[in-house]
Amino acid sequence: MSENGVTARRSKVLTIDTMNATVKKVEYAVRGPIVQRAVQIEKELKEGAKKPFTEVIKANIGDAHAMGQQPITFFRQVLALCSYPELLKDGNFPEDAKHRARRILQGCGGESIGAYSGSQGIECIRQDVARYIERRDGGVPCDPDNVFLSTGASDGIVTMLKLLVAGEGRSRTGIMISIPQYPLYSAALAELGAVQVNYYLDEEKCWGLDISELQRSLEAARQHCNPRALCIINPGNPTGQVQSRQCIEDVIRFAAKEDLFLMADEVYQDNVYADGCQFHSFKKVLFEMGPEYSNTVELASFHSTSKCYMGECGFRGGYMEVINLDPEVKEQLSKLVSVRLCPPVPGQALMGLVVNPPQPGEPSYTTFMKERTGVLSTLAEKAKLTEQILNTVPGIACNPVQGAMYSFPRITLPERAVKEAKEKGQAPDMLYCMKLLEETGICLVPGSGFGQRDGTYHFRMTILPPVDKLQILLSKLKEFHQRFTQQYS
Amino acid sequence: MSENGVTARRSKVLTIDTMNATVKKVEYAVRGPIVQRAVQIEKELKEGAKKPFTEVIKANIGDAHAMGQQPITFFRQVLALCSYPELLKDGNFPEDAKHRARRILQGCGGESIGAYSGSQGIECIRQDVARYIERRDGGVPCDPDNVFLSTGASDGIVTMLKLLVAGEGRSRTGIMISIPQYPLYSAALAELGAVQVNYYLDEEKCWGLDISELQRSLEAARQHCNPRALCIINPGNPTGQVQSRQCIEDVIRFAAKEDLFLMADEVYQDNVYADGCQFHSFKKVLFEMGPEYSNTVELASFHSTSKCYMGECGFRGGYMEVINLDPEVKEQLSKLVSVRLCPPVPGQALMGLVVNPPQPGEPSYTTFMKERTGVLSTLAEKAKLTEQILNTVPGIACNPVQGAMYSFPRITLPERAVKEAKEKGQAPDMLYCMKLLEETGICLVPGSGFGQRDGTYHFRMTILPPVDKLQILLSKLKEFHQRFTQQYS
Repeated sequence: MSENGVTARRSKVLTIDTMNATVKKVEYAVRGPIVQRAVQIEKELKEGAKKPFTEVIKANIGDAHAMGQQPITFFRQVLALCSYPELLKDGNFPEDAKHRARRILQGCGGESIGAYSGSQGIECIRQDVARYIERRDGGVPCDPDNVFLSTGASDGIVTMLKLLVAGEGRSRTGIMISIPQYPLYSAALAELGAVQVNYYLDEEKCWGLDISELQRSLEAARQHCNPRALCIINPGNPTGQVQSRQCIEDVIRFAAKEDLFLMADEVYQDNVYADGCQFHSFKKVLFEMGPEYSNTVELASFHSTSKCYMGECGFRGGYMEVINLDPEVKEQLSKLVSVRLCPPVPGQALMGLVVNPPQPGEPSYTTFMKERTGVLSTLAEKAKLTEQILNTVPGIACNPVQGAMYSFPRITLPERAVKEAKEKGQAPDMLYCMKLLEETGICLVPGSGFGQRDGTYHFRMTILPPVDKLQILLSKLKEFHQRFTQQYS
Repeated sequence: MSENGVTARRSKVLTIDTMNATVKKVEYAVRGPIVQRAVQIEKELKEGAKKPFTEVIKANIGDAHAMGQQPITFFRQVLALCSYPELLKDGNFPEDAKHRARRILQGCGGESIGAYSGSQGIECIRQDVARYIERRDGGVPCDPDNVFLSTGASDGIVTMLKLLVAGEGRSRTGIMISIPQYPLYSAALAELGAVQVNYYLDEEKCWGLDISELQRSLEAARQHCNPRALCIINPGNPTGQVQSRQCIEDVIRFAAKEDLFLMADEVYQDNVYADGCQFHSFKKVLFEMGPEYSNTVELASFHSTSKCYMGECGFRGGYMEVINLDPEVKEQLSKLVSVRLCPPVPGQALMGLVVNPPQPGEPSYTTFMKERTGVLSTLAEKAKLTEQILNTVPGIACNPVQGAMYSFPRITLPERAVKEAKEKGQAPDMLYCMKLLEETGICLVPGSGFGQRDGTYHFRMTILPPVDKLQILLSKLKEFHQRFTQQYS
């Protein structure tokens, strides 16, 4: 407070020392320093800087369209029709696209996607989501009132975590997350001031989830906090594993026994590539386990328009389904989401199309299926290619990319490199990735951004670049790894 | 923790008693119980229920398209082109729309609005925002690096508040907000656990802002918290006043003297109707006051695609500009927004069009200007109509609707009505609005949802219904008020 009025050297109200301390703790590696440097290098290249490469390849983030994947024609046709309904008179648009567009517009206030929707999302889209879930889960019923559309899956996940966090000191809420994890979780927990409870995936067993490790982690956590929820990402991010039905059943049994709220991040549900692997939703398995479980275990599951075969990240579409949520808590959830008015309506429309795509016999069906299958089979090919090539490099060990969009190989780093990084106050795999970026233009995320067992090092690499570019990327990476190892030996 | 394994009657992990207590404190009247009842009544009407009315008129929320306002053709053409670029070959689209669409697509990864953008927003759109601000503010420079695109203005406001909240007990951050206020502010402050510091607008002086009231409020707050920021909504929501240049200068001087961070919610900047009133941005006035102020006072200002002449709420587009923000805090801000990846890209595109509309000489200019002027002049007409008719009702006193989209008239309620409400544990104006809804189908928001001086009662009503419907609404409201007064006298 100044007593002599204003002076030109008045200090700031808001400084790094006086700002929200929990925000300072937030970290988000997928868009961290390495990506900032990549953006900078791109600008330098544009301005004519000479580098040992001509372009930056961003394999740091699951951003399919940015890597050249084409949108699904039907989805974009319907979105164009919804945006500019004058096009409903245009003979070049197929009838099924027009029909979907009319249905969405009828669900909107004033038949405009420019109107706010209900905070929980447009009703007819929530109904379509419910029917999609029922089909996916072999007929297990889904009530549209349990479906909340969201601004990407991230929004739903953060909202559920927000409801769960309570207590102080030893009774502060703990949230169990896998390590390696997707850093949205650690960032949200830091911001909410919840206790992050780590359980480790087993790299030796293809990043499998082991119940005894869950038990160990839980018991350790109970010494200092109140663990209340267990988060699972399946198929895995960053680790690319696909959980077996048995494993999911074991996890549900564990959650029931230990009174844990389950959060199932299932945004990669269509991204399953490996032979013998199959996606099982937590909800389906829960209901197959009978009423003892399906009537009691609290579950929130999350989906998104950003991944799978559509890769429509920019629209920020998503939904969550809540099972066995206490009705009073559900009311609080409805109230909470109403403050932000509604998820973006174009994203809602897109989510509605994903859960209600063209059907056999409709004019757009053949093209839709061709495009969908094309994307998924190319991803499967790239998953295999990535694993195979990486495993030819001495000092790199890559588990099969069973699903999702990432490989998370382990890298052996020479002791001298580890030492140099530590002297610089840098994570050793950050040193590695930063050098890789500067020398080759390849942008990956160091394993330390996701968490890993002490003394192990990894990176996350998406499998999204087009096949020819991916091959170049992998061979450059191979050369780099050999050079790096030699240099520091 | 259960020791005997699962039982069918296992209690919930997450209950109203064990959930996040701060979330329970959140209230959001604009979508509160009255709106839930309105939605229910709409369903009852659809199912054939007999009511004294045939439709619910929602004058509770600034949702222009839901009230029949038509979108701006040019904006929707560009959005359709961006959604389905195949249309760029279509001869029916004007060249300027195609040009804008190409520019936006070139700013997107893979030239697709389905790619993530940078977390701060698409660069060329931030540049367009900066140029718009410069034009609006008579040449005051704007750095695109200070512009953050957001998911509606709400997102930007909550993000800035999040950075500001710190301290415990007596040093907990206090945030000054006007009463009446827009309940996003109280909801966000409750959720963040900040101290809400009320200053009252002067209803007798057309909801004017008085510096001595700011001073009173600040000094009272300093007894129990650390007031750090002052929020202003101009033009006002829910009160519809437009601040004079002098008033803004006084506020800035006050903020500078008292070391307060300024937050200027300017989402209604094009919604100014009253003769002699004009919109002045806080930034412009700040810079006109000279370097003593423009180099020191920290300011965040907010804009949106949801209001003004476009009313595109569903797209959740918006931006904030930060002035004099500490560079380290700005880095933290960039990091914080990166966790949610990016604002919805269609909303970003729309924001880009709002700040860069068709120019004289371009093919879409005439139609654009006609549509824009049409919407704004109709709104001006409805603002006047609302004020005039309401003021003919004994027991209703309505200040001029100088700007924004709302009237916030004061209503005199008979003592017996106040008593009955209190017996029911209800706010008296909630009783009034609920009865109005049940008897006439008109949905308004009680003044108690925005805050008001003790013992006074108000409602907020949008001026958005079409003129003929607005007239019916106002005459029904008049009848109702007379009936209500009689009934309780």
